[in-house]
Amino acid sequence: MKIIRDPIHGNIELNEIELKLADAPEMQRLRHISQNGLCNLVYPAMNSTRFEHSLGVMHLAGKVADHLGLDEERQDLKIAGLLHDIGHCAFSHTSDHLLSRFGFNHEENSSRIILNTGISDILNSYSISPEKISDLVTGKGNLSKIISSEIDVDKMDYLLRDSYYAGVAYGIIDLERIIHTLKLAGGEIIVGSGGLEAAESLLIGRNMMHQTIYRHHTKRIVESMFANAVNSLLNDGKITYDSFLGMDDIDLVYTLRNSGGYAGEMMHRIDTRKLFKRVFAEKINKTLRSFRSEISKNKKEIENKISDDAKIPRGFLLMDMQSSEMSEFKVLVEYDNELKRIDEVSELAKALEKAELERLTFCIYADPKYRDNVKNLDIDDYIQYTQTMLKKFY
Amino acid sequence: MKIIRDPIHGNIELNEIELKLADAPEMQRLRHISQNGLCNLVYPAMNSTRFEHSLGVMHLAGKVADHLGLDEERQDLKIAGLLHDIGHCAFSHTSDHLLSRFGFNHEENSSRIILNTGISDILNSYSISPEKISDLVTGKGNLSKIISSEIDVDKMDYLLRDSYYAGVAYGIIDLERIIHTLKLAGGEIIVGSGGLEAAESLLIGRNMMHQTIYRHHTKRIVESMFANAVNSLLNDGKITYDSFLGMDDIDLVYTLRNSGGYAGEMMHRIDTRKLFKRVFAEKINKTLRSFRSEISKNKKEIENKISDDAKIPRGFLLMDMQSSEMSEFKVLVEYDNELKRIDEVSELAKALEKAELERLTFCIYADPKYRDNVKNLDIDDYIQYTQTMLKKFY
Amino acid sequence: MKIIRDPIHGNIELNEIELKLADAPEMQRLRHISQNGLCNLVYPAMNSTRFEHSLGVMHLAGKVADHLGLDEERQDLKIAGLLHDIGHCAFSHTSDHLLSRFGFNHEENSSRIILNTGISDILNSYSISPEKISDLVTGKGNLSKIISSEIDVDKMDYLLRDSYYAGVAYGIIDLERIIHTLKLAGGEIIVGSGGLEAAESLLIGRNMMHQTIYRHHTKRIVESMFANAVNSLLNDGKITYDSFLGMDDIDLVYTLRNSGGYAGEMMHRIDTRKLFKRVFAEKINKTLRSFRSEISKNKKEIENKISDDAKIPRGFLLMDMQSSEMSEFKVLVEYDNELKRIDEVSELAKALEKAELERLTFCIYADPKYRDNVKNLDIDDYIQYTQTMLKKFY
Amino acid sequence: MKIIRDPIHGNIELNEIELKLADAPEMQRLRHISQNGLCNLVYPAMNSTRFEHSLGVMHLAGKVADHLGLDEERQDLKIAGLLHDIGHCAFSHTSDHLLSRFGFNHEENSSRIILNTGISDILNSYSISPEKISDLVTGKGNLSKIISSEIDVDKMDYLLRDSYYAGVAYGIIDLERIIHTLKLAGGEIIVGSGGLEAAESLLIGRNMMHQTIYRHHTKRIVESMFANAVNSLLNDGKITYDSFLGMDDIDLVYTLRNSGGYAGEMMHRIDTRKLFKRVFAEKINKTLRSFRSEISKNKKEIENKISDDAKIPRGFLLMDMQSSEMSEFKVLVEYDNELKRIDEVSELAKALEKAELERLTFCIYADPKYRDNVKNLDIDDYIQYTQTMLKKFY
Repeated sequence: MKIIRDPIHGNIELNEIELKLADAPEMQRLRHISQNGLCNLVYPAMNSTRFEHSLGVMHLAGKVADHLGLDEERQDLKIAGLLHDIGHCAFSHTSDHLLSRFGFNHEENSSRIILNTGISDILNSYSISPEKISDLVTGKGNLSKIISSEIDVDKMDYLLRDSYYAGVAYGIIDLERIIHTLKLAGGEIIVGSGGLEAAESLLIGRNMMHQTIYRHHTKRIVESMFANAVNSLLNDGKITYDSFLGMDDIDLVYTLRNSGGYAGEMMHRIDTRKLFKRVFAEKINKTLRSFRSEISKNKKEIENKISDDAKIPRGFLLMDMQSSEMSEFKVLVEYDNELKRIDEVSELAKALEKAELERLTFCIYADPKYRDNVKNLDIDDYIQYTQTMLKKFY
Repeated sequence: MKIIRDPIHGNIELNEIELKLADAPEMQRLRHISQNGLCNLVYPAMNSTRFEHSLGVMHLAGKVADHLGLDEERQDLKIAGLLHDIGHCAFSHTSDHLLSRFGFNHEENSSRIILNTGISDILNSYSISPEKISDLVTGKGNLSKIISSEIDVDKMDYLLRDSYYAGVAYGIIDLERIIHTLKLAGGEIIVGSGGLEAAESLLIGRNMMHQTIYRHHTKRIVESMFANAVNSLLNDGKITYDSFLGMDDIDLVYTLRNSGGYAGEMMHRIDTRKLFKRVFAEKINKTLRSFRSEISKNKKEIENKISDDAKIPRGFLLMDMQSSEMSEFKVLVEYDNELKRIDEVSELAKALEKAELERLTFCIYADPKYRDNVKNLDIDDYIQYTQTMLKKFY
Repeated sequence: MKIIRDPIHGNIELNEIELKLADAPEMQRLRHISQNGLCNLVYPAMNSTRFEHSLGVMHLAGKVADHLGLDEERQDLKIAGLLHDIGHCAFSHTSDHLLSRFGFNHEENSSRIILNTGISDILNSYSISPEKISDLVTGKGNLSKIISSEIDVDKMDYLLRDSYYAGVAYGIIDLERIIHTLKLAGGEIIVGSGGLEAAESLLIGRNMMHQTIYRHHTKRIVESMFANAVNSLLNDGKITYDSFLGMDDIDLVYTLRNSGGYAGEMMHRIDTRKLFKRVFAEKINKTLRSFRSEISKNKKEIENKISDDAKIPRGFLLMDMQSSEMSEFKVLVEYDNELKRIDEVSELAKALEKAELERLTFCIYADPKYRDNVKNLDIDDYIQYTQTMLKKFY
Repeated sequence: MKIIRDPIHGNIELNEIELKLADAPEMQRLRHISQNGLCNLVYPAMNSTRFEHSLGVMHLAGKVADHLGLDEERQDLKIAGLLHDIGHCAFSHTSDHLLSRFGFNHEENSSRIILNTGISDILNSYSISPEKISDLVTGKGNLSKIISSEIDVDKMDYLLRDSYYAGVAYGIIDLERIIHTLKLAGGEIIVGSGGLEAAESLLIGRNMMHQTIYRHHTKRIVESMFANAVNSLLNDGKITYDSFLGMDDIDLVYTLRNSGGYAGEMMHRIDTRKLFKRVFAEKINKTLRSFRSEISKNKKEIENKISDDAKIPRGFLLMDMQSSEMSEFKVLVEYDNELKRIDEVSELAKALEKAELERLTFCIYADPKYRDNVKNLDIDDYIQYTQTMLKKFY
């Protein structure tokens, strides 16, 4: 039994197999994958990694298993918690949509690693089924909800952890009470009766963290610049898909720094804090929302069109169409002996959901010297442009 | 006035010049210099950087200036606090003794940067003397003691900060009380009467942090491996001194990873946690202590001799002669209307000093497969060898 | 300058006059007035007193004065913060409605003490106007809003303090950020633009505290029993109004314990935790709401009627009609260069306000052995009874 | 399973029997026994009670039982933890030496209550032996060491709890690590090898708490005044021994307030903070130490003699001979495979022990108007007086 000290959960215990897995190169790699991408350009103390988060998720998975009396599944659940982020690429979510260019996501990558690398050898040597772990990590089967769902141990750990490093109180959710309130009902993880307030506190914590941290506009600007830089290297073939999968933050930053051209310039700007600014912002109204997916799919073309119209060199104007998943509002709670979605029974949940939608914005970021170039921009023109463009294709 | 959120001090305010300096490339570089080198291999959440620490030190310098009524010097002191670590090389103290190969230390490097780069331009444009700042940073003049001395704002920040991320309570010193107790007396920063207990708490915090964190044996092993790897690159001329000064952690790790040979192997071992183990340890007794400096100066030769005797390939056995600075025990305190060293008036300080000396150890780290090769090693042989070797030269 | 250590704000500094006031018997009395009445029967660690809270409010008043640049008014504001609760009777709010029997409230009592006791002598001896302090404490003049209003230092202190002792995270509001966001505009304390989120966090903290602590049903039961016991002593003339004003918690509990009869029995039940239970609860719908004030005014008569109908001895069935002040939702915030109520511009505030109203309940508490006696109770009967009774009188 | 929220340990779970015991009048009484006597006159937030502490000790006893694998004894240990302070009289340790006048201590009183009141009925009804619990509480048998010994759960709880309310960091010991390090060896609770540092942190925390809180001179003054007041009531027969045992803080303060005479005056002075001051202090040197027990035994006579000599009315000069138990330094630790006292193997422990002895002081407290009356007092005169007096008797 090895003990690792963690500022969020105190002592985290690892048994032999958990330690072997944590020491495996595929997990050690997560030491160099930042938990929050480039968030530290806004909150300088947010330097945590996917590695420490993975230990925390493992620890919480064990606690939930204990609470639910899942003695037999406990070891599998802990391992799934430990390995759930093993497929994350450099800079975590920042590079997620780059993966999606290849029709791939980080959970599938996790599954690939669990099934096909030294990880599966370790699992097999302890008679643990890699397939079972992969299923738990990729959302197959009811118990996978403990690892990933509307109210999962992943979220509990990162909300607490991120607020600790950011130095804000918002994420401080009542962990013990939430875990105590969880129940298994018909294969779903639900919030038992009497737990509504604890579940609301999770929604509130998440809401405040999104507002002040995850969606901070400077963070979004930096991430847009960074993603566009990586994208250009992928387009130019300077990084291949396979090499990208193997990179950690160090490899990727070094490659960007030394690649010259647009990518090199963007990385240099980030390194020396010569950032783009938000030069245009508009709330996402109904019209915009109905075109969101089309606009997102054709981001590059529309960005180019706006750049050309505004006489801004391509790549120096970036578009950001915010969206929201908000799966948390689907949490099921026991209420008057029925199972209901939390946003059906809680005024607070309903309001948070509405507030979140209303806060979504369409933004344009650019080198500040081009600020004047976009001051007369009319978003409707580009909605129309999108429509025309779509007609051309279909 | 810009506000940056910090988990240790809450809101840190930066005025225009402080912000310009913090945004300068020379300071932004510190975002990629880890505060505690490779300590995160033991405490996975210790991922903080010299950048956030520098903001904290600036903040505390302002508080101490306020307490001491140094209104005129306040701005200089804050800037000195902000810039005090600007000369740190990759991996902070881990690479400090590499600098010393060139007869150089990180404070001189700080001075060089303050006087000869864009930093001096910014300072001059606000009519602040770069020379004055450089003096404060390099220990010249009485007020420099606020930044760097037995009881300085540097120490106050890092003890609090490191214990926060490590998740241990030991560093939680009573900041407000210590600052409240500081006085200027004859140009010295001293602890006013009634402040003995607060000063003792700083010594205790520091002692506990050294024992459990800074001198953790696994941390020392990793750092020995890492330093030896970098050393070999410097010896081979694969990294020049000048390029080394410009590197941050990212550059250095990438270079090591891709340099092949011994350095590449060591870095790969660290990346995949295939670490050396402590195969020999002996308390540093009087004899050893009297030869310490000679042994340290001829580390490489003695290491090689031990390796050869033990039939271990050179570079796969590393020697670690622990030492201790313990400047803290020289803090002056007002006691019965006299100024005394804290270890003259405090039993506790005396005991901590003694305990610290008695804990120092001479260690040998090696690939665990060679464990048996050193089991009969007699340290006296190598003290004699050192003596013989020294006679040869002088 | 004296320093008092406080777990919420760290070091609290008191200058000579503040210390004299804090040491005066009228303030020392607050050491024996509990901050949260009988809340510690639910949260056993909630044992804080009005005295420590008063120090905290003084401290925050100073901080807000500094932030707003109110140098001249700073001393008055701090003193008003220190003295704002000086008129609280035993068990704070629990006895507030007993005061109201005499057409009096605790703020008027504060004013009386500030103007007519040793307190006014101390103030006068330092050339501070007792009238001015009394005005600040009783809501007269714009600056009194700092002490008592929708967003005041009183609330900031007690939300933080109470959550600290209860051991819940809900009250952990972002104090520094809220204070930083406050502005004076046309004599109002408002939340400056950009401060909406900080103000929302205060509303959320308050909401969670109300739900889980201040309105905890066991707390309400105990307070109903206690208030009814004190009431009976006042009715019987065993305590006079004047003696009641002079009592602290110790005097009142001792008197109840030794008074025999109904009051003695209730106190014995509380001391030995033989509490009434909630035997009936109904959400306060529109009809109930429209009769609320009539029912509250005639509480005793209706309670007696219900007791008689249910064949429960009078005094062993207690009625509790919950209400809500919710002044916080009137906080003014700067939004798009206009001043608006927070519940006009924040979806979250709107939802919290609505949720709070919907949660209000009409409850009946009784000795559990009478549980069956009320199981067929129909609240409409008593609304009708109230109407009939009212007609009789008017 | 009932859950009670605690700020120190989070959720504390009570099963049916534990809840019945906690709800019993004998335990509910502890809600009105302050944990730290009159300490809140110095640290105004130190208002915690023996009740919440007892819950904490129960909780920790369960944790230690789990760690040591004492499944069978777990329930008994938890109950002993819950009941260990049940015999405390009003104001806890402040009244301890009053008990000793009757050749009695609070642990014997605990035993009496466990064996002879409703508590024993509850225990018997769950087939738990009151005798066994009484033994665990009064130090009989090896396992009683978990509840009360050099390194017990009592100390762990109160150090953490008291530092939390005082708002100082000193008591923040590494609870998880200490518990993890405990072992049973030959019926002793010892600190396992590798746990030396954790045990040292407990000693340090305790030392700092004693220096700044438990032995704060104002606290000692107030407690001397208070104890002397109670003493005078006991002497006059205004309180009998039996009634004293039944009193909680409320009863005792009310009685003092309304007793008139010396006791009433002292209580009034405490209530209105008109405290005695320290008018004389001398380190306890060897001579004084060798007479300590004689002086303590004849405290009243010597106090009277000093008062008469100094022309101070009896009762307005109080003598305080500080002593120290320091049982913590006898903790056994595993060291190089042997069991040793911690002060044999730890320099730090040795120093703390020495420092503690050197800090002990002989003090005289008096109404400040008599300050000049004692300025020429020579303690040697009273040592001699004690000797003479002793010869008279023996």
